[in-house]
Amino acid sequence: MAEIPESHPRRKSLISRKTIVNATKQGLLADSAMIAHGRGEAFDYLLGEKTSEIAKLSIKESAARLISAKHPVISVNGNTVVLAGKSLVRVAAVLQCPIEINIYYRTEERMNLLYDFLELQRMKVSKEKNPVNWSGDWETTVLAVKILGKEEDGKIEGLEGPRAICSTEGIEKADVILVPLEDGDRCEVLVSLGKEVLVVDLNPLSRSAKMATVTIVDEVSRMADLLLEYVIANSSDITEWDNDLALKESLKVISETGDL
Amino acid sequence: MAEIPESHPRRKSLISRKTIVNATKQGLLADSAMIAHGRGEAFDYLLGEKTSEIAKLSIKESAARLISAKHPVISVNGNTVVLAGKSLVRVAAVLQCPIEINIYYRTEERMNLLYDFLELQRMKVSKEKNPVNWSGDWETTVLAVKILGKEEDGKIEGLEGPRAICSTEGIEKADVILVPLEDGDRCEVLVSLGKEVLVVDLNPLSRSAKMATVTIVDEVSRMADLLLEYVIANSSDITEWDNDLALKESLKVISETGDL
Repeated sequence: MAEIPESHPRRKSLISRKTIVNATKQGLLADSAMIAHGRGEAFDYLLGEKTSEIAKLSIKESAARLISAKHPVISVNGNTVVLAGKSLVRVAAVLQCPIEINIYYRTEERMNLLYDFLELQRMKVSKEKNPVNWSGDWETTVLAVKILGKEEDGKIEGLEGPRAICSTEGIEKADVILVPLEDGDRCEVLVSLGKEVLVVDLNPLSRSAKMATVTIVDEVSRMADLLLEYVIANSSDITEWDNDLALKESLKVISETGDL
Repeated sequence: MAEIPESHPRRKSLISRKTIVNATKQGLLADSAMIAHGRGEAFDYLLGEKTSEIAKLSIKESAARLISAKHPVISVNGNTVVLAGKSLVRVAAVLQCPIEINIYYRTEERMNLLYDFLELQRMKVSKEKNPVNWSGDWETTVLAVKILGKEEDGKIEGLEGPRAICSTEGIEKADVILVPLEDGDRCEVLVSLGKEVLVVDLNPLSRSAKMATVTIVDEVSRMADLLLEYVIANSSDITEWDNDLALKESLKVISETGDL
């Protein structure tokens, strides 16, 4: 793909697209990752490619639930690692929670590639300055973030085959899971196990979106940057979250953009 | 990807996805074809994966304009060839118009692969029984369809570089062009040259959708099957088509599906 001009109104979206195309070529992503990304692009287009007010509320709610959790975990798939790996490492550092790489089409090769990619991102993040409003020893804090996924020593009860595989110290033990771009079946099972599932999904009509405890209808990298601000602000005010109402609100945003 | 069960409610969509993934592996499609397909999937999801009433009207209008044209042409890109090649060969046969392969990211290799693919589809279609309600010598009619694109002897005035390339006997000469999944700039230029441009685009907000003479907001393979029926019915009743109104109607369908 050609260079994207600085002035292009959809520059951020086009850069993300390029990132996904390149990562696919490098073998980091499954065959259908580009198609999933394209679906996301379309929904984000309809959202005006910005974080809606209701998305902000759902990110705030998710931050509070992660802060209040006993064993929070951030579960990431290939597209999430590639698009928002650095930002989520920062969130995990502030929360002091592990990140688990958990991929739907599991191969050892892709798992290793994603692991190395995320390790490198963690290294880069550890060299950054402290995030705004956060104080402490950033490098040590970032390097303490555990990257899980390769152990494959856990199991999600109620699922069969490779999709049941997880880490004991990650998803299996977790009471609150932030899981961008999750599969609907898995989301349903995780909720049925009594876990709080915070899903990031641009499609407010998807099964995952409907099944989740809190659904964040937003693009994953925008979401991650805002989530960092909220976890640093350290508010643990959990509300009686009405997810159906929140989804309706997101649909309204989509319909209204359509009217422009 | 795994086998798709017969009973799956979104079976047709999943088969199309598989077709696009396989064609990409075979080198028929550009890097970003899967992303474009994913965007289409999302919009089609919002349309309930069926042809809306307004889409039917726009297909009928397009049929009438193709029938009445002096030099109609069907311009196809990679995704269109792969998803609707056979159906569009049938339409071209009934209309006795050429099909021009015209791709955005032009390489000789992809052009040759797409040409061979479409030639094979034409051969297969020529062995089929006559379409319903069509009488004549089907095999001869189908084999008479010209597949253009490799000549590169024409130019679209007003465009620069590879995107200006076309066939003299195809797009250059045409007064009416059916062009699924077109780029916005090219659509604009073709219209400014006084040509009627009939666009198929699942995104009613895209630049192409807004620029076209008639926009068909529908999935390309569903559209092509219905278009065949209409061109066989042979109605050349052209209306005063209000494309903005039609786009608003499509947006309404999307918003209403969203409310379910």
